[in-house]
Amino acid sequence: MPSLEICFSPDLLHLYTLENKKVVVADILRATSCMVTGLACGVKSFTPFADLEECRQMRQKGYLIAAERDGQTIDGFDLGNSPFSYMSDEVAGKKVAFTTTNGTQAIQKSGKGEILIGSFLNLQAVTDFLNASGEDVVVVCAGWKGRFNLEDTLFAGALSMNLVNYSINDDAALAAKYLYSISKNNLFQFLSNSSHFSRLKKLNIQKDIEFCLSLNQYSNLPKVINGIVTNNYEGNNPL
Amino acid sequence: MPSLEICFSPDLLHLYTLENKKVVVADILRATSCMVTGLACGVKSFTPFADLEECRQMRQKGYLIAAERDGQTIDGFDLGNSPFSYMSDEVAGKKVAFTTTNGTQAIQKSGKGEILIGSFLNLQAVTDFLNASGEDVVVVCAGWKGRFNLEDTLFAGALSMNLVNYSINDDAALAAKYLYSISKNNLFQFLSNSSHFSRLKKLNIQKDIEFCLSLNQYSNLPKVINGIVTNNYEGNNPL
Repeated sequence: MPSLEICFSPDLLHLYTLENKKVVVADILRATSCMVTGLACGVKSFTPFADLEECRQMRQKGYLIAAERDGQTIDGFDLGNSPFSYMSDEVAGKKVAFTTTNGTQAIQKSGKGEILIGSFLNLQAVTDFLNASGEDVVVVCAGWKGRFNLEDTLFAGALSMNLVNYSINDDAALAAKYLYSISKNNLFQFLSNSSHFSRLKKLNIQKDIEFCLSLNQYSNLPKVINGIVTNNYEGNNPL
Repeated sequence: MPSLEICFSPDLLHLYTLENKKVVVADILRATSCMVTGLACGVKSFTPFADLEECRQMRQKGYLIAAERDGQTIDGFDLGNSPFSYMSDEVAGKKVAFTTTNGTQAIQKSGKGEILIGSFLNLQAVTDFLNASGEDVVVVCAGWKGRFNLEDTLFAGALSMNLVNYSINDDAALAAKYLYSISKNNLFQFLSNSSHFSRLKKLNIQKDIEFCLSLNQYSNLPKVINGIVTNNYEGNNPL
């Protein structure tokens, strides 16, 4: 029976073996939600960068450049970290160079194996793919600057509940599952006390948060191939 | 209002500021439970060692030597990691040199400030001390070899629920509080699926586990002073 493990922070990745496993990266508020949305709506690819300046230089190569730090769009960049910016005709067909506080860093730290991009928006697509693969899974929560966060944990918990025939011998996965089971009927309300929620509320992006917590808006499953995020399969996008 | 933060693993301690804060270290199964029990029952002190051989050499200096790795007592040592071993007349008045898989390492990584030893066995004593101090608190969960574990998290959650007039802006503390709130009526049952529980069950130490999960058996509050764990205040031990 394949195993499911959850890594609560990129700073704990040294404790996990990622080889020969499916790795799912989640940064619910908002990097992986943006990637799923963008790719479902026609963005060609996202190239993650940890460094702001490296990302900025990609404009010269014809990329749209997107940057977020501490929840806010950086001056001089075309796009920030709101999923709604990635739905427009102006981004469709474009390649996006993307750097965020947590999510893009988590992707870069998650090794060279098979990395999938997870969010509530494509939960069912992630679930179906993993259930069909029957392979060991590690969910990497992007967290907040290395620390545990609730929203990524709840996504991991939702995945733990959805996967069938997986063994859960991992306390992090058990905790995530319990937390999702008590919150699933109202994720927004449950997260209203969380640290990241408070941070983002100040930025007036309640609409972003509500959208990022909505399940199965899209059926695409983005995958990281040679450091670039593209749709692994497209399903019928958007649903 | 003072703040409460929870660090789920010693491997995340670099993300926390410990200066001018009260640090509570918890390794529920079983290092900190043993220390609280021993000191309540007359052990003079515990000196934590990360290294097995350094610990072994303390016998020459008149210490009882205690060592656990992966849940089991190490051959050639006087004592292991069962709280019941620390209740006998043979250990009363003695100094103990102690090394365990997680707990003693967590203490050594928790800096040079004011470090308190927490467990369910002395939960009320920890609570009272912190409520009276009104200072910022970081709870350091020993975890399992750097990974998140449930039992230390539940202790941290219990503390989060008991502290009054503390602000909780930390997702780890919120998660711990939620997890404790759904488990507090039957911690043993709740933990029966946890990774460490399964590991320890194989070793036939169910009695240890039940004891370590029982609240307020003692009212002492051990503290680490110059690297040595002794009773900070004794209250009426044992209750």
